[in-house]
Amino acid sequence: MTPPFRHVAVIGLGLLGGSVARATKAALPTTHVSGYDADAAVRLRAEAIGLVDTVAQTAAEAVAGADLVVLCVPVGAMEAAARAMASGLAEDVLISDVGSSKAGVAAVLAQILPGHRVIPAHPVAGTEQSGPDAGFASLFRNRWCILTPPVDADPADLARLAALWEAFGARVETMDAEHHDLVLAVTSHLPHLIAYCIVGTASDLERVTQSEVIKYSAGGFRDFTRIAASDPTMWRDVFLTNRDAVLDMLGRFSRDLLALENAIRDGDGTELFDHFTRTRAIRRSIIEMGQDDARPDFGRSDHSGTA
Amino acid sequence: MTPPFRHVAVIGLGLLGGSVARATKAALPTTHVSGYDADAAVRLRAEAIGLVDTVAQTAAEAVAGADLVVLCVPVGAMEAAARAMASGLAEDVLISDVGSSKAGVAAVLAQILPGHRVIPAHPVAGTEQSGPDAGFASLFRNRWCILTPPVDADPADLARLAALWEAFGARVETMDAEHHDLVLAVTSHLPHLIAYCIVGTASDLERVTQSEVIKYSAGGFRDFTRIAASDPTMWRDVFLTNRDAVLDMLGRFSRDLLALENAIRDGDGTELFDHFTRTRAIRRSIIEMGQDDARPDFGRSDHSGTA
Repeated sequence: MTPPFRHVAVIGLGLLGGSVARATKAALPTTHVSGYDADAAVRLRAEAIGLVDTVAQTAAEAVAGADLVVLCVPVGAMEAAARAMASGLAEDVLISDVGSSKAGVAAVLAQILPGHRVIPAHPVAGTEQSGPDAGFASLFRNRWCILTPPVDADPADLARLAALWEAFGARVETMDAEHHDLVLAVTSHLPHLIAYCIVGTASDLERVTQSEVIKYSAGGFRDFTRIAASDPTMWRDVFLTNRDAVLDMLGRFSRDLLALENAIRDGDGTELFDHFTRTRAIRRSIIEMGQDDARPDFGRSDHSGTA
Repeated sequence: MTPPFRHVAVIGLGLLGGSVARATKAALPTTHVSGYDADAAVRLRAEAIGLVDTVAQTAAEAVAGADLVVLCVPVGAMEAAARAMASGLAEDVLISDVGSSKAGVAAVLAQILPGHRVIPAHPVAGTEQSGPDAGFASLFRNRWCILTPPVDADPADLARLAALWEAFGARVETMDAEHHDLVLAVTSHLPHLIAYCIVGTASDLERVTQSEVIKYSAGGFRDFTRIAASDPTMWRDVFLTNRDAVLDMLGRFSRDLLALENAIRDGDGTELFDHFTRTRAIRRSIIEMGQDDARPDFGRSDHSGTA
């Protein structure tokens, strides 16, 4: 098949940018991949491990001649990245990104790059690791990638971008940016906020030591520490740019938590049991949809040998 | 070596009871294991899969001749289980359990079984699955088991019980029941309450469909659904029996969550960044202590092939 793009420029070479670069090289071996990162140490490391075909010394140089640019920087850094690369952009280039909030990114790119074709994207995939060594080609396999095209987007552009993500093994869905931000507020942003919060709460106790928290973390806490080890800059920007939807979901969560608190205070076992029963079905559906590992405890290595 | 017990009776044949039975058979092949479950279907299933050496038809029959009884029922069912087995207990038997809250269990067992030797225990291990097929011998390997002996416990009994858990591959720690309940409130009970809560919140939305929540769960939400798939009866009982410590920790969490909410509302990126940075170190310590898998995303199968 003809690859959907002949030259992909990746701006930002962390977990996501590195994975986009590796997935492109794996799925579309004839497509040229150029890359740039604002951090000189990351550029050197990317060069050393051969993350992209060419590491550029400026953003404008990285995008020169590219027919697709993928911005893989924290959403708060999109504006600076767009300004830095603007002078190097070809006229027919398509511009996309991988940011976790979309309405704000769409507005910024439309403002900084008027007249350019922009289709924002968000692959719902990641790990708690970051940096140029963290990425891998299979990160997007069986994960969803949400495209949020503006109403006047060219259907041909949309088809090419979808073809790229499908070549990475992702399943593609399209929705408007506002709805994306609401959906992700509950499936991703609120979970991260809560995880960051409880890990902070647990570190601040006086009557329970941090070493006890660590020792007995297998009771559930350790799962939250994985999410709370995610990149702080990326997540700061997500909460600042998707503020309204996050506050909406957080308000609902806090109200529900108060109801559970009252049930505990009142010794209302029926209320607790009913609540804990109806949450089981969702887990089953997630596993049936191929969105998580069915093995107990995610198949963590220490439990894999069932005897 | 001489096994620490020659006959272990397991009351309650779910995930924990089944794992205790399998671990005993694996580590102490000469020790006899008898078992009982109040649910006749579970008894039949345990018989069919050879979970224990003998399945008894009553609790009293199961404990007859045993030198160790391990109660593996939800903490709210401890009283009934203790009453049911009382008439069959030998005089020199040691009684223990695996419940997730300890002060309440200790009080109940002391009241129902006066004059008997009781040392409560809590292995900090589990999966989200339940039932007689869910257990496995390696569940306790490299996990901590906390013993909460009463002040007048016989040191020889304590040593024998510790030897049993060490034979299962666990590391043993001793503390008083009240401190246990405070530590576990933060490392296990609060994480479960929060996970149950957010999964409920996500199911009740009007503008985001349940199918969208499921599709895009890989953004973080899916991790919470695993914990929220745990046994509802067990968790209802934990919250009812460890109410004060859970409400204490929940109050601290809610206060910290309000501070994060205000930081988002005020657009205070510095506060968010600082909070998100200091939570990373705990994850590293948990991995260094061997309490979690170091691989990204817990080494979930779909990411194991890094290319």
